[in-house]
Amino acid sequence: MTIADTRTEDRYPTRVFSEPKWIERTDPTVWPGLDSGPIDEETLRSYDSKGFLTIEQLLSPAEVQTFWQELERLANDPAVRKDERTVIEKTSNEVRSIFEVHKTSELIAELARDPRVLDRARQILGSDVYVHQSRINYMPGFKGAGFYWHSDFETWHAEDGMPAMRAVSISIALTDNYPYNGGLMLMPGAHRTFVSCVGNTPDNHYKESLKEQEIGTPDRDSLTQLAATHGIEQFTGPAGSALMFDSNSMHGSGSNITPYARSNIFIVFNSVENALVDPFAAKNPRPTFIASRDFTPLTR
Amino acid sequence: MTIADTRTEDRYPTRVFSEPKWIERTDPTVWPGLDSGPIDEETLRSYDSKGFLTIEQLLSPAEVQTFWQELERLANDPAVRKDERTVIEKTSNEVRSIFEVHKTSELIAELARDPRVLDRARQILGSDVYVHQSRINYMPGFKGAGFYWHSDFETWHAEDGMPAMRAVSISIALTDNYPYNGGLMLMPGAHRTFVSCVGNTPDNHYKESLKEQEIGTPDRDSLTQLAATHGIEQFTGPAGSALMFDSNSMHGSGSNITPYARSNIFIVFNSVENALVDPFAAKNPRPTFIASRDFTPLTR
Repeated sequence: MTIADTRTEDRYPTRVFSEPKWIERTDPTVWPGLDSGPIDEETLRSYDSKGFLTIEQLLSPAEVQTFWQELERLANDPAVRKDERTVIEKTSNEVRSIFEVHKTSELIAELARDPRVLDRARQILGSDVYVHQSRINYMPGFKGAGFYWHSDFETWHAEDGMPAMRAVSISIALTDNYPYNGGLMLMPGAHRTFVSCVGNTPDNHYKESLKEQEIGTPDRDSLTQLAATHGIEQFTGPAGSALMFDSNSMHGSGSNITPYARSNIFIVFNSVENALVDPFAAKNPRPTFIASRDFTPLTR
Repeated sequence: MTIADTRTEDRYPTRVFSEPKWIERTDPTVWPGLDSGPIDEETLRSYDSKGFLTIEQLLSPAEVQTFWQELERLANDPAVRKDERTVIEKTSNEVRSIFEVHKTSELIAELARDPRVLDRARQILGSDVYVHQSRINYMPGFKGAGFYWHSDFETWHAEDGMPAMRAVSISIALTDNYPYNGGLMLMPGAHRTFVSCVGNTPDNHYKESLKEQEIGTPDRDSLTQLAATHGIEQFTGPAGSALMFDSNSMHGSGSNITPYARSNIFIVFNSVENALVDPFAAKNPRPTFIASRDFTPLTR
Protein backbone atom coordinates (compact mmCIF):
# COMPACT_ATOMS: atom_id res chain seq x y z
CA MET A 1 0.00 0.00 0.00
CA THR A 2 1.48 3.37 -0.97
CA ILE A 3 1.24 6.50 1.10
CA ALA A 4 -1.25 7.93 -1.37
CA ASP A 5 -3.52 4.92 -0.86
CA THR A 6 -3.40 5.26 2.88
CA ARG A 7 -4.26 8.92 2.77
CA THR A 8 -7.33 8.52 0.67
CA GLU A 9 -8.75 5.47 2.42
CA ASP A 10 -12.36 6.34 3.27
CA ARG A 11 -13.25 5.05 6.71
CA TYR A 12 -16.29 7.31 6.93
CA PRO A 13 -18.21 7.00 3.67
CA THR A 14 -21.12 9.44 3.44
CA ARG A 15 -23.53 10.67 0.76
CA VAL A 16 -22.95 7.40 -1.09
CA PHE A 17 -25.49 4.94 0.35
CA SER A 18 -29.22 5.00 -0.31
CA GLU A 19 -29.98 4.61 3.40
CA PRO A 20 -28.49 6.29 6.48
CA LYS A 21 -25.86 4.16 8.18
CA TRP A 22 -24.03 4.26 11.49
CA ILE A 23 -20.27 3.76 11.38
CA GLU A 24 -18.38 3.28 14.61
CA ARG A 25 -15.57 5.80 15.06
CA THR A 26 -12.11 4.28 14.78
CA ASP A 27 -10.20 7.47 15.58
CA PRO A 28 -9.35 8.52 19.12
CA THR A 29 -11.02 11.66 20.50
CA VAL A 30 -8.04 12.72 22.59
CA TRP A 31 -5.00 11.87 20.51
CA PRO A 32 -1.80 10.64 22.13
CA GLY A 33 1.40 12.55 21.43
CA LEU A 34 1.66 15.39 23.91
CA ASP A 35 2.21 14.78 27.58
CA SER A 36 1.11 18.08 29.01
CA GLY A 37 -1.00 21.14 28.36
CA PRO A 38 -3.44 23.54 29.99
CA ILE A 39 -6.29 20.98 30.18
CA ASP A 40 -6.32 19.02 33.44
CA GLU A 41 -6.71 15.26 33.39
CA GLU A 42 -10.31 15.13 34.57
CA THR A 43 -11.45 17.65 31.97
CA LEU A 44 -9.55 15.75 29.28
CA ARG A 45 -11.22 12.49 30.30
CA SER A 46 -14.61 14.20 30.21
CA TYR A 47 -13.81 15.63 26.76
CA ASP A 48 -12.90 12.14 25.62
CA SER A 49 -16.25 10.71 26.73
CA LYS A 50 -18.54 13.65 25.86
CA GLY A 51 -16.77 15.11 22.85
CA PHE A 52 -16.69 18.63 24.23
CA LEU A 53 -15.53 20.76 27.14
CA THR A 54 -16.27 24.28 28.33
CA ILE A 55 -13.90 26.92 29.66
CA GLU A 56 -15.26 29.54 32.00
CA GLN A 57 -13.86 32.98 31.42
CA LEU A 58 -11.30 32.04 28.78
CA LEU A 59 -11.28 35.75 28.02
CA SER A 60 -11.36 38.47 30.67
CA PRO A 61 -14.12 41.07 30.49
CA ALA A 62 -11.56 43.57 29.14
CA GLU A 63 -10.57 41.15 26.38
CA VAL A 64 -14.20 40.54 25.52
CA GLN A 65 -14.54 44.28 25.11
CA THR A 66 -11.51 44.42 22.83
CA PHE A 67 -12.75 41.64 20.59
CA TRP A 68 -16.22 43.08 20.57
CA GLN A 69 -14.84 46.33 19.19
CA GLU A 70 -12.90 44.34 16.60
CA LEU A 71 -16.11 42.62 15.51
CA GLU A 72 -17.85 45.95 15.19
CA ARG A 73 -14.94 47.37 13.22
CA LEU A 74 -14.95 44.45 10.79
CA ALA A 75 -18.73 44.39 10.34
CA ASN A 76 -18.73 48.09 9.49
CA ASP A 77 -15.71 48.07 7.18
CA PRO A 78 -17.01 48.60 3.59
CA ALA A 79 -14.11 46.52 2.18
CA VAL A 80 -14.99 43.62 4.49
CA ARG A 81 -18.67 43.83 3.58
CA LYS A 82 -17.79 43.55 -0.12
CA ASP A 83 -15.42 40.63 0.43
CA GLU A 84 -16.56 37.18 -0.76
CA ARG A 85 -15.59 35.83 2.65
CA THR A 86 -18.38 37.85 4.26
CA VAL A 87 -21.90 36.39 4.44
CA ILE A 88 -24.57 39.08 4.36
CA GLU A 89 -28.24 38.38 4.96
CA LYS A 90 -30.13 39.62 1.94
CA THR A 91 -33.36 40.70 3.62
CA SER A 92 -31.73 42.77 6.35
CA ASN A 93 -28.39 43.63 4.67
CA GLU A 94 -26.69 42.67 7.93
CA VAL A 95 -23.40 40.80 8.30
CA ARG A 96 -23.95 37.23 9.58
CA SER A 97 -20.46 35.70 9.28
CA ILE A 98 -16.96 36.72 8.27
CA PHE A 99 -14.60 33.89 7.28
CA GLU A 100 -10.82 33.58 7.51
CA VAL A 101 -10.63 36.25 10.19
CA HIS A 102 -7.37 34.78 11.50
CA LYS A 103 -5.83 36.11 8.30
CA THR A 104 -7.58 39.46 8.10
CA SER A 105 -7.57 40.50 11.75
CA GLU A 106 -4.27 40.71 13.61
CA LEU A 107 -6.12 40.47 16.92
CA ILE A 108 -7.80 37.21 15.96
CA ALA A 109 -4.57 35.83 14.48
CA GLU A 110 -3.05 36.49 17.88
CA LEU A 111 -5.97 34.79 19.62
CA ALA A 112 -5.50 31.62 17.54
CA ARG A 113 -1.83 31.54 18.65
CA ASP A 114 -2.65 32.39 22.27
CA PRO A 115 -1.41 29.54 24.52
CA ARG A 116 -4.83 29.35 26.22
CA VAL A 117 -6.29 28.41 22.84
CA LEU A 118 -3.49 26.86 20.78
CA ASP A 119 -2.05 24.67 23.54
CA ARG A 120 -5.47 23.24 24.33
CA ALA A 121 -5.98 22.35 20.66
CA ARG A 122 -2.50 20.79 20.46
CA GLN A 123 -3.11 18.84 23.63
CA ILE A 124 -6.36 17.34 22.33
CA LEU A 125 -5.02 16.55 18.87
CA GLY A 126 -1.63 15.30 20.10
CA SER A 127 0.38 17.14 17.45
CA ASP A 128 1.08 20.42 15.81
CA VAL A 129 -2.05 22.03 14.39
CA TYR A 130 -3.08 24.57 11.78
CA VAL A 131 -6.27 26.59 11.32
CA HIS A 132 -8.71 24.75 9.08
CA GLN A 133 -11.34 27.48 9.29
CA SER A 134 -12.01 30.62 11.29
CA ARG A 135 -14.96 32.93 11.40
CA ILE A 136 -16.92 35.47 13.36
CA ASN A 137 -20.64 34.80 13.77
CA TYR A 138 -23.19 37.53 14.36
CA MET A 139 -26.56 36.12 15.41
CA PRO A 140 -29.27 38.72 15.76
CA GLY A 141 -31.97 38.78 18.39
CA PHE A 142 -35.71 38.56 17.62
CA LYS A 143 -35.31 36.44 14.49
CA GLY A 144 -32.03 34.56 14.80
CA ALA A 145 -32.44 31.40 12.78
CA GLY A 146 -31.06 28.25 14.31
CA PHE A 147 -28.85 25.66 12.67
CA TYR A 148 -30.11 22.10 12.33
CA TRP A 149 -28.29 19.09 13.86
CA HIS A 150 -25.09 18.10 12.11
CA SER A 151 -21.58 16.78 12.54
CA ASP A 152 -19.00 19.21 11.16
CA PHE A 153 -16.77 16.29 10.24
CA GLU A 154 -19.39 14.92 7.87
CA THR A 155 -19.11 18.06 5.77
CA TRP A 156 -15.34 18.47 6.16
CA HIS A 157 -14.85 14.85 5.12
CA ALA A 158 -17.31 14.92 2.22
CA GLU A 159 -16.63 18.38 0.86
CA ASP A 160 -13.12 19.29 2.07
CA GLY A 161 -11.38 15.91 2.05
CA MET A 162 -10.51 15.74 5.75
CA PRO A 163 -9.44 12.09 6.24
CA ALA A 164 -9.72 11.49 10.00
CA MET A 165 -11.57 12.84 13.01
CA ARG A 166 -8.61 14.79 14.28
CA ALA A 167 -9.89 18.35 14.42
CA VAL A 168 -11.31 20.45 17.23
CA SER A 169 -13.38 23.62 17.17
CA ILE A 170 -13.38 26.40 19.70
CA SER A 171 -16.31 28.77 19.99
CA ILE A 172 -15.56 31.80 22.12
CA ALA A 173 -18.68 33.64 23.27
CA LEU A 174 -18.57 37.43 23.03
CA THR A 175 -22.11 37.75 24.32
CA ASP A 176 -23.89 35.95 27.14
CA ASN A 177 -25.31 32.55 26.21
CA TYR A 178 -28.60 31.80 27.95
CA PRO A 179 -30.57 28.58 27.62
CA TYR A 180 -33.09 30.52 25.55
CA ASN A 181 -31.19 32.62 23.03
CA GLY A 182 -30.18 29.93 20.60
CA GLY A 183 -27.05 28.59 22.28
CA LEU A 184 -25.41 25.45 20.92
CA MET A 185 -26.91 22.08 21.88
CA LEU A 186 -24.72 19.00 21.81
CA MET A 187 -25.28 15.29 22.33
CA PRO A 188 -22.58 14.15 24.77
CA GLY A 189 -21.02 10.91 23.56
CA ALA A 190 -22.55 10.96 20.09
CA HIS A 191 -19.12 11.87 18.64
CA ARG A 192 -18.27 8.12 18.80
CA THR A 193 -20.83 7.43 16.06
CA PHE A 194 -20.51 8.61 12.49
CA VAL A 195 -23.89 9.02 10.85
CA SER A 196 -23.44 8.42 7.14
CA CYS A 197 -25.86 10.78 5.40
CA VAL A 198 -27.94 10.31 2.28
CA GLY A 199 -27.83 12.53 -0.80
CA ASN A 200 -25.39 13.89 -3.34
CA THR A 201 -23.41 17.06 -2.85
CA PRO A 202 -24.58 19.70 -5.33
CA ASP A 203 -21.96 21.87 -7.07
CA ASN A 204 -21.03 24.95 -5.05
CA HIS A 205 -23.01 23.53 -2.17
CA TYR A 206 -21.24 25.79 0.34
CA LYS A 207 -23.02 28.90 -0.97
CA GLU A 208 -26.28 27.54 0.36
CA SER A 209 -25.11 25.28 3.15
CA LEU A 210 -23.50 28.13 5.10
CA LYS A 211 -26.99 29.52 5.58
CA GLU A 212 -29.15 26.45 5.83
CA GLN A 213 -27.93 22.93 5.31
CA GLU A 214 -29.99 20.03 3.97
CA ILE A 215 -27.52 17.68 2.29
CA GLY A 216 -25.23 16.28 4.96
CA THR A 217 -27.77 16.46 7.76
CA PRO A 218 -28.54 13.28 9.71
CA ASP A 219 -31.87 11.49 9.41
CA ARG A 220 -34.52 11.75 12.11
CA ASP A 221 -34.33 8.13 13.22
CA SER A 222 -30.61 8.51 13.91
CA LEU A 223 -31.16 11.74 15.82
CA THR A 224 -33.96 10.20 17.88
CA GLN A 225 -31.80 7.23 18.81
CA LEU A 226 -28.73 9.34 19.54
CA ALA A 227 -30.73 11.73 21.73
CA ALA A 228 -32.35 8.82 23.58
CA THR A 229 -28.92 7.29 24.24
CA HIS A 230 -26.88 10.40 24.95
CA GLY A 231 -29.30 13.18 25.87
CA ILE A 232 -28.76 16.82 25.03
CA GLU A 233 -26.62 19.46 26.75
CA GLN A 234 -26.57 23.16 26.08
CA PHE A 235 -23.59 25.51 26.06
CA THR A 236 -24.47 28.43 28.30
CA GLY A 237 -22.32 30.95 30.08
CA PRO A 238 -21.28 34.58 30.22
CA ALA A 239 -19.36 36.37 27.48
CA GLY A 240 -15.74 35.25 27.51
CA SER A 241 -16.51 31.59 28.12
CA ALA A 242 -15.63 29.05 25.47
CA LEU A 243 -16.67 25.68 24.15
CA MET A 244 -14.27 23.22 22.53
CA PHE A 245 -15.86 20.38 20.63
CA ASP A 246 -14.82 17.40 18.58
CA SER A 247 -15.18 17.49 14.79
CA ASN A 248 -17.77 14.71 14.95
CA SER A 249 -19.81 16.10 17.83
CA MET A 250 -23.52 16.10 16.97
CA HIS A 251 -24.72 19.64 17.52
CA GLY A 252 -27.27 22.23 16.45
CA SER A 253 -29.09 25.31 17.68
CA GLY A 254 -32.65 26.56 17.91
CA SER A 255 -33.94 29.94 16.91
CA ASN A 256 -33.51 33.09 18.96
CA ILE A 257 -36.57 35.32 19.45
CA THR A 258 -35.14 37.03 22.53
CA PRO A 259 -33.74 40.55 22.25
CA TYR A 260 -30.32 39.13 23.18
CA ALA A 261 -28.09 38.82 20.11
CA ARG A 262 -25.25 36.31 20.12
CA SER A 263 -21.77 36.74 18.67
CA ASN A 264 -18.81 34.45 18.82
CA ILE A 265 -15.37 33.80 17.39
CA PHE A 266 -15.05 30.37 15.91
CA ILE A 267 -11.71 28.68 15.12
CA VAL A 268 -11.23 25.12 13.85
CA PHE A 269 -7.87 23.47 14.43
CA ASN A 270 -6.84 20.43 12.44
CA SER A 271 -3.81 18.22 13.08
CA VAL A 272 -0.97 18.74 10.60
CA GLU A 273 -0.96 14.94 10.37
CA ASN A 274 -4.53 15.07 9.07
CA ALA A 275 -3.95 17.29 6.04
CA LEU A 276 -6.81 17.52 3.54
CA VAL A 277 -6.91 15.34 0.44
CA ASP A 278 -9.45 15.37 -2.38
CA PRO A 279 -13.07 15.62 -1.17
CA PHE A 280 -14.58 12.24 -0.37
CA ALA A 281 -18.06 13.11 -1.68
CA ALA A 282 -17.90 16.25 -3.79
CA LYS A 283 -16.59 17.14 -7.21
CA ASN A 284 -14.45 20.07 -6.10
CA PRO A 285 -13.09 21.16 -2.74
CA ARG A 286 -14.63 24.22 -1.11
CA PRO A 287 -12.79 27.57 -1.32
CA THR A 288 -9.73 27.84 0.91
CA PHE A 289 -11.28 30.62 2.99
CA ILE A 290 -13.72 27.96 4.23
CA ALA A 291 -11.28 25.03 4.31
CA SER A 292 -7.62 26.03 4.34
CA ARG A 293 -5.08 24.01 2.35
CA ASP A 294 -2.10 25.66 3.95
CA PHE A 295 -1.04 23.04 6.50
CA THR A 296 1.85 25.00 8.03
CA PRO A 297 1.89 24.43 11.80
CA LEU A 298 0.70 27.36 13.86
CA THR A 299 3.47 28.58 16.16
CA ARG A 300 4.03 31.40 18.56
CA MET B 1 -72.86 56.82 32.93
CA THR B 2 -74.91 53.78 32.02
CA ILE B 3 -73.81 50.19 32.51
CA ALA B 4 -73.34 49.84 28.75
CA ASP B 5 -70.93 52.78 28.75
CA THR B 6 -68.90 51.34 31.57
CA ARG B 7 -68.59 47.99 29.92
CA THR B 8 -67.22 49.30 26.68
CA GLU B 9 -64.77 51.80 28.14
CA ASP B 10 -61.41 51.08 26.47
CA ARG B 11 -58.62 51.36 29.02
CA TYR B 12 -56.20 49.45 26.80
CA PRO B 13 -56.44 50.93 23.31
CA THR B 14 -54.39 48.96 20.77
CA ARG B 15 -54.05 48.85 16.97
CA VAL B 16 -55.26 52.45 16.87
CA PHE B 17 -52.13 54.59 17.29
CA SER B 18 -49.44 55.10 14.65
CA GLU B 19 -46.69 54.42 17.21
CA PRO B 20 -46.34 51.74 19.90
CA LYS B 21 -47.33 53.00 23.34
CA TRP B 22 -47.00 51.73 26.89
CA ILE B 23 -50.10 51.86 29.05
CA GLU B 24 -49.80 51.16 32.76
CA ARG B 25 -52.07 48.36 33.93
CA THR B 26 -54.94 49.56 36.11
CA ASP B 27 -56.36 46.09 36.84
CA PRO B 28 -55.18 43.94 39.73
CA THR B 29 -53.31 40.73 38.90
CA VAL B 30 -54.67 38.81 41.87
CA TRP B 31 -58.28 39.93 42.24
CA PRO B 32 -59.89 40.29 45.66
CA GLY B 33 -63.06 38.37 46.33
CA LEU B 34 -62.14 34.91 47.55
CA ASP B 35 -60.48 34.35 50.86
CA SER B 36 -59.10 30.89 50.33
CA GLY B 37 -58.00 28.39 47.72
CA PRO B 38 -55.29 25.87 46.87
CA ILE B 39 -52.62 28.51 46.19
CA ASP B 40 -50.58 29.41 49.28
CA GLU B 41 -49.95 33.02 50.16
CA GLU B 42 -46.32 33.13 49.09
CA THR B 43 -47.08 31.64 45.68
CA LEU B 44 -49.95 34.06 45.25
CA ARG B 45 -47.70 37.01 46.08
CA SER B 46 -45.14 35.75 43.60
CA TYR B 47 -47.86 35.37 40.96
CA ASP B 48 -48.91 38.92 41.64
CA SER B 49 -45.41 40.26 41.04
CA LYS B 50 -44.31 37.97 38.20
CA GLY B 51 -47.59 37.33 36.42
CA PHE B 52 -47.21 33.55 36.49
CA LEU B 53 -46.72 30.54 38.72
CA THR B 54 -45.78 26.92 38.15
CA ILE B 55 -47.23 23.79 39.73
CA GLU B 56 -45.04 20.72 39.97
CA GLN B 57 -46.87 17.50 39.28
CA LEU B 58 -50.34 18.93 38.97
CA LEU B 59 -51.13 15.64 37.26
CA SER B 60 -49.84 12.28 38.43
CA PRO B 61 -47.90 10.12 35.96
CA ALA B 62 -51.00 7.92 35.59
CA GLU B 63 -53.14 10.94 34.77
CA VAL B 64 -50.58 12.14 32.25
CA GLN B 65 -50.88 8.74 30.60
CA THR B 66 -54.67 9.00 30.50
CA PHE B 67 -54.65 12.45 28.94
CA TRP B 68 -51.93 11.40 26.53
CA GLN B 69 -54.15 8.62 25.25
CA GLU B 70 -57.03 11.08 24.95
CA LEU B 71 -54.83 13.37 22.83
CA GLU B 72 -53.90 10.47 20.59
CA ARG B 73 -57.52 9.43 20.27
CA LEU B 74 -58.62 12.94 19.29
CA ALA B 75 -55.76 13.49 16.84
CA ASN B 76 -56.58 10.22 15.06
CA ASP B 77 -60.36 10.66 14.98
CA PRO B 78 -61.37 11.37 11.35
CA ALA B 79 -64.33 13.47 12.51
CA VAL B 80 -62.06 15.61 14.68
CA ARG B 81 -59.57 16.02 11.83
CA LYS B 82 -62.32 17.35 9.57
CA ASP B 83 -63.70 19.71 12.21
CA GLU B 84 -63.09 23.44 11.69
CA ARG B 85 -61.85 23.61 15.27
CA THR B 86 -58.85 21.49 14.34
CA VAL B 87 -55.73 23.17 12.94
CA ILE B 88 -53.83 20.90 10.56
CA GLU B 89 -50.41 21.75 9.18
CA LYS B 90 -50.67 21.67 5.42
CA THR B 91 -47.18 20.44 4.57
CA SER B 92 -47.19 17.49 6.97
CA ASN B 93 -50.94 16.86 7.28
CA GLU B 94 -50.41 16.63 11.06
CA VAL B 95 -52.73 17.98 13.73
CA ARG B 96 -51.24 21.03 15.48
CA SER B 97 -54.12 22.23 17.67
CA ILE B 98 -57.65 21.23 18.55
CA PHE B 99 -59.89 23.96 19.97
CA GLU B 100 -62.83 23.84 22.35
CA VAL B 101 -61.74 20.46 23.75
CA HIS B 102 -63.52 21.14 27.03
CA LYS B 103 -66.73 20.68 25.03
CA THR B 104 -65.70 17.75 22.86
CA SER B 105 -63.76 15.66 25.39
CA GLU B 106 -65.45 14.59 28.59
CA LEU B 107 -62.03 14.00 30.17
CA ILE B 108 -60.91 17.54 29.49
CA ALA B 109 -64.25 18.98 30.56
CA GLU B 110 -63.65 17.18 33.85
CA LEU B 111 -60.12 18.55 34.06
CA ALA B 112 -61.39 22.14 33.68
CA ARG B 113 -63.75 21.52 36.63
CA ASP B 114 -61.12 19.71 38.70
CA PRO B 115 -60.62 21.63 42.00
CA ARG B 116 -56.84 21.61 41.42
CA VAL B 117 -57.46 23.67 38.29
CA LEU B 118 -60.75 25.48 38.74
CA ASP B 119 -60.20 26.58 42.35
CA ARG B 120 -56.81 28.04 41.46
CA ALA B 121 -58.36 30.03 38.63
CA ARG B 122 -61.18 31.23 40.89
CA GLN B 123 -58.70 32.19 43.59
CA ILE B 124 -56.63 34.33 41.21
CA LEU B 125 -59.60 35.99 39.53
CA GLY B 126 -61.58 36.47 42.77
CA SER B 127 -64.88 35.32 41.30
CA ASP B 128 -66.71 32.63 39.42
CA VAL B 129 -65.09 31.85 36.10
CA TYR B 130 -65.93 30.33 32.73
CA VAL B 131 -63.77 28.86 29.98
CA HIS B 132 -62.87 31.53 27.45
CA GLN B 133 -60.83 29.12 25.31
CA SER B 134 -59.46 25.61 25.51
CA ARG B 135 -57.19 23.66 23.23
CA ILE B 136 -54.72 20.88 22.88
CA ASN B 137 -51.36 21.76 21.31
CA TYR B 138 -49.21 19.22 19.50
CA MET B 139 -45.72 20.55 18.85
CA PRO B 140 -43.55 18.25 16.80
CA GLY B 141 -39.85 17.67 17.30
CA PHE B 142 -37.19 18.48 14.67
CA LYS B 143 -39.08 21.39 13.12
CA GLY B 144 -41.42 22.78 15.77
CA ALA B 145 -41.91 26.43 14.93
CA GLY B 146 -41.89 28.82 17.85
CA PHE B 147 -44.38 31.54 18.62
CA TYR B 148 -43.21 35.14 18.74
CA TRP B 149 -43.56 37.37 21.82
CA HIS B 150 -47.06 38.54 22.58
CA SER B 151 -49.60 39.31 25.28
CA ASP B 152 -52.73 37.17 24.93
CA PHE B 153 -54.80 39.98 26.35
CA GLU B 154 -53.84 42.25 23.48
CA THR B 155 -55.56 39.88 21.07
CA TRP B 156 -58.46 39.01 23.37
CA HIS B 157 -59.12 42.70 23.94
CA ALA B 158 -58.74 43.75 20.30
CA GLU B 159 -60.39 40.81 18.58
CA ASP B 160 -62.66 39.24 21.22
CA GLY B 161 -63.78 42.29 23.20
CA MET B 162 -62.41 41.25 26.58
CA PRO B 163 -62.67 44.44 28.67
CA ALA B 164 -60.27 43.92 31.60
CA MET B 165 -57.18 41.91 32.46
CA ARG B 166 -59.09 39.38 34.52
CA ALA B 167 -58.29 36.10 32.83
CA VAL B 168 -55.74 33.40 33.56
CA SER B 169 -54.36 30.62 31.39
CA ILE B 170 -53.21 27.22 32.50
CA SER B 171 -50.86 25.18 30.35
CA ILE B 172 -50.56 21.58 31.50
CA ALA B 173 -47.53 19.79 30.08
CA LEU B 174 -48.11 16.25 28.83
CA THR B 175 -44.49 15.92 27.72
CA ASP B 176 -41.28 16.96 29.44
CA ASN B 177 -40.30 20.60 28.96
CA TYR B 178 -36.56 21.10 28.68
CA PRO B 179 -34.84 24.44 28.28
CA TYR B 180 -34.12 23.46 24.69
CA ASN B 181 -37.30 22.06 23.18
CA GLY B 182 -39.23 25.25 22.70
CA GLY B 183 -40.72 25.71 26.15
CA LEU B 184 -42.54 28.92 26.96
CA MET B 185 -40.46 31.98 27.87
CA LEU B 186 -42.01 34.71 29.99
CA MET B 187 -40.90 38.13 31.18
CA PRO B 188 -41.65 38.20 34.91
CA GLY B 189 -43.30 41.50 35.87
CA ALA B 190 -44.01 42.65 32.31
CA HIS B 191 -47.71 41.90 32.85
CA ARG B 192 -47.98 45.31 34.59
CA THR B 193 -47.36 47.03 31.25
CA PHE B 194 -49.73 46.95 28.31
CA VAL B 195 -47.91 47.41 25.02
CA SER B 196 -50.31 49.03 22.61
CA CYS B 197 -49.53 47.58 19.19
CA VAL B 198 -49.53 49.17 15.76
CA GLY B 199 -51.55 47.98 12.77
CA ASN B 200 -55.11 47.21 11.79
CA THR B 201 -56.77 43.85 12.30
CA PRO B 202 -57.45 42.22 8.93
CA ASP B 203 -60.78 40.44 8.41
CA ASN B 204 -60.71 36.81 9.58
CA HIS B 205 -57.31 37.48 11.10
CA TYR B 206 -57.57 34.42 13.32
CA LYS B 207 -57.15 32.04 10.39
CA GLU B 208 -53.58 33.23 9.98
CA SER B 209 -52.77 34.43 13.48
CA LEU B 210 -53.26 30.99 15.02
CA LYS B 211 -50.26 29.86 13.01
CA GLU B 212 -48.07 32.92 12.94
CA GLN B 213 -49.03 36.28 14.27
CA GLU B 214 -47.82 39.63 12.96
CA ILE B 215 -50.55 42.12 13.78
CA GLY B 216 -50.80 42.44 17.54
CA THR B 217 -47.15 41.66 18.22
CA PRO B 218 -45.14 44.15 20.24
CA ASP B 219 -42.40 46.27 18.69
CA ARG B 220 -38.73 45.46 19.20
CA ASP B 221 -37.93 48.54 21.25
CA SER B 222 -40.62 47.62 23.76
CA LEU B 223 -39.40 44.03 23.96
CA THR B 224 -35.80 45.14 24.42
CA GLN B 225 -36.79 47.48 27.25
CA LEU B 226 -39.09 44.95 28.90
CA ALA B 227 -36.43 42.22 28.75
CA ALA B 228 -33.79 44.58 30.13
CA THR B 229 -36.08 45.51 33.02
CA HIS B 230 -37.65 42.13 33.78
CA GLY B 231 -35.40 39.47 32.29
CA ILE B 232 -36.67 36.21 30.85
CA GLU B 233 -37.71 32.98 32.57
CA GLN B 234 -38.48 29.66 30.98
CA PHE B 235 -41.15 27.15 31.94
CA THR B 236 -39.44 23.80 32.27
CA GLY B 237 -40.45 20.64 34.11
CA PRO B 238 -41.57 17.07 33.68
CA ALA B 239 -44.84 16.00 32.13
CA GLY B 240 -47.70 16.71 34.51
CA SER B 241 -46.39 20.07 35.66
CA ALA B 242 -48.34 23.19 34.87
CA LEU B 243 -47.93 26.89 34.29
CA MET B 244 -50.59 29.46 35.13
CA PHE B 245 -50.08 32.90 33.64
CA ASP B 246 -51.82 36.23 33.55
CA SER B 247 -53.65 37.31 30.40
CA ASN B 248 -51.18 40.16 29.90
CA SER B 249 -48.01 38.17 30.57
CA MET B 250 -45.43 38.80 27.81
CA HIS B 251 -44.47 35.40 26.48
CA GLY B 252 -43.23 33.50 23.46
CA SER B 253 -41.33 30.40 22.45
CA GLY B 254 -38.41 29.49 20.24
CA SER B 255 -38.21 26.71 17.72
CA ASN B 256 -37.73 23.05 18.59
CA ILE B 257 -35.15 21.09 16.58
CA THR B 258 -34.77 18.39 19.24
CA PRO B 259 -36.41 14.99 18.76
CA TYR B 260 -38.55 15.75 21.83
CA ALA B 261 -42.08 16.75 20.79
CA ARG B 262 -44.17 18.85 23.16
CA SER B 263 -47.86 18.54 23.87
CA ASN B 264 -50.00 20.38 26.32
CA ILE B 265 -53.56 21.10 27.35
CA PHE B 266 -54.35 24.76 27.45
CA ILE B 267 -57.36 26.28 29.22
CA VAL B 268 -58.15 29.98 29.59
CA PHE B 269 -60.42 31.03 32.42
CA ASN B 270 -62.09 34.43 32.39
CA SER B 271 -64.01 36.02 35.25
CA VAL B 272 -67.79 36.00 34.78
CA GLU B 273 -67.56 39.68 35.76
CA ASN B 274 -65.37 40.29 32.70
CA ALA B 275 -67.76 39.03 30.02
CA LEU B 276 -66.86 39.85 26.43
CA VAL B 277 -68.31 42.87 24.65
CA ASP B 278 -67.80 43.95 21.04
CA PRO B 279 -64.20 43.68 19.86
CA PHE B 280 -62.17 46.82 20.64
CA ALA B 281 -60.15 46.72 17.43
CA ALA B 282 -61.77 44.36 14.95
CA LYS B 283 -64.85 44.43 12.77
CA ASN B 284 -66.25 41.09 13.93
CA PRO B 285 -65.58 38.91 16.96
CA ARG B 286 -63.68 35.66 16.40
CA PRO B 287 -65.61 32.37 16.29
CA THR B 288 -66.90 31.15 19.63
CA PHE B 289 -64.72 28.02 19.52
CA ILE B 290 -61.76 30.43 19.91
CA ALA B 291 -63.46 32.93 22.23
CA SER B 292 -66.53 31.62 24.01
CA ARG B 293 -69.54 33.89 24.50
CA ASP B 294 -71.25 31.56 26.93
CA PHE B 295 -70.44 33.15 30.27
CA THR B 296 -72.14 30.56 32.50
CA PRO B 297 -70.00 29.95 35.60
CA LEU B 298 -68.14 26.67 35.63
CA THR B 299 -69.23 24.54 38.59
CA ARG B 300 -68.61 21.10 39.89
